[in-house]
Amino acid sequence: MNLILLEPDEIHAEGLAVLAGKRARHVREVLKAGEGEQIRVGVVEGPTGTAVVIAEDGGEIRLQCTLDGGVPPVPRADVLLAMPRPKVMNRLWPVLASLGVGRILISNAWKTERNYFDTHVLGPEHIRAGLIEGLQQARDTRLPQVSVHRQFRKLIEDELDAFGPYAAKLAAHPGAGAFPAETLAALPREGRVLLAVGPEGGWTPFELELLEAHGFEAVSWGPRALRTDTACAVLLGLMHAALAQSSP
Amino acid sequence: MNLILLEPDEIHAEGLAVLAGKRARHVREVLKAGEGEQIRVGVVEGPTGTAVVIAEDGGEIRLQCTLDGGVPPVPRADVLLAMPRPKVMNRLWPVLASLGVGRILISNAWKTERNYFDTHVLGPEHIRAGLIEGLQQARDTRLPQVSVHRQFRKLIEDELDAFGPYAAKLAAHPGAGAFPAETLAALPREGRVLLAVGPEGGWTPFELELLEAHGFEAVSWGPRALRTDTACAVLLGLMHAALAQSSP
Repeated sequence: MNLILLEPDEIHAEGLAVLAGKRARHVREVLKAGEGEQIRVGVVEGPTGTAVVIAEDGGEIRLQCTLDGGVPPVPRADVLLAMPRPKVMNRLWPVLASLGVGRILISNAWKTERNYFDTHVLGPEHIRAGLIEGLQQARDTRLPQVSVHRQFRKLIEDELDAFGPYAAKLAAHPGAGAFPAETLAALPREGRVLLAVGPEGGWTPFELELLEAHGFEAVSWGPRALRTDTACAVLLGLMHAALAQSSP
Repeated sequence: MNLILLEPDEIHAEGLAVLAGKRARHVREVLKAGEGEQIRVGVVEGPTGTAVVIAEDGGEIRLQCTLDGGVPPVPRADVLLAMPRPKVMNRLWPVLASLGVGRILISNAWKTERNYFDTHVLGPEHIRAGLIEGLQQARDTRLPQVSVHRQFRKLIEDELDAFGPYAAKLAAHPGAGAFPAETLAALPREGRVLLAVGPEGGWTPFELELLEAHGFEAVSWGPRALRTDTACAVLLGLMHAALAQSSP
């Protein structure tokens, strides 16, 4: 945790907050911050700032917060992800939040097994905990919005427009064209980009055609087949590096 | 497994091989390849190719291999990694091998806890199993070479030259300059690149100065602090995408 996230209702009058449980242990055992020392904090969907440890007993830590760091911008990248195996999805929540995404659309796909959706990994509490972990790693406060879509075609044809507009839509596909870094770097500063990542075996021809018919460009990071979580990190890294170059 | 890796001594006369255990289960249960069907295979440090399932009983699968796919080139990227927590290192073996690295130098660093080195995660059998998993994911056969260096300064000052030459050396550091994609894309086609990734808290000023004095350029992927495994995926992805553009 490079920043301790607080829920808005945990900040009391005059910036006081009380930590218990996992976050208190982290302040004590990892950050080793004692009374009078300062740590980085943030409020979910709110500003970042610092906090001074004003009192500490066995279980609780009292903080005096100064939330003067501003509210981070919503990341310019969204992800449409064919539901991977639950174990991989579980690993992905903090990874996606740390890399920076505004929205995560979890979708069905032809090669996705139906029972992948019957998992606690898609439970709201579980998702939120994973995302918060990633935000604390990356010093962000903006919680990605997550929605689950069990019908791929309906998502692409009927629902996707409501999440945009997107200045570019990319569909990761093995063997497709090189990553369009220059195109992304030339987008206007406020342009948002959607990245679609398929199941481990890739999109079917029908799915890829449907994506292309709806404005997606098929792209590839290179010749090597990657696990879904590694592929997401590589592709979001390439996207953010290119977007960071776009003019203000 | 997108390719089943065989050890050289598992290939018998006339291309026959016998799979048992985990790989046999994978062929049966995931690839669902029965008698007469073809799968992708490769030989560790050798060629790739295909194999036909010629017989299958409860535990074993007999293959007829045709190893005509050529030997993949050694990846042009090497990694120097400050030893992370053993749990993270464990996750990283397959990730690094799947992304493509020729050599992995595991190093001490000021912020690395000494007891991180006393772990089975650095045992040769364990390393090899993790790397093989990553190669099978990425359809590669070239096993990264791994060495462990307990003295950072000695590694940089005395030992590093023996692993080169490197056309570029990069040191990942939070807040450093933008990733030099254009510089890497302009390197000669055979030029190798070394990426140094520090501990979670970053390199100390002394370590960064030592790296810079030995030809490393400090680079950053962006403003967000990432977990070591995510940072490695992002940075190696950026490196390979840039290197793929260099002229033949």
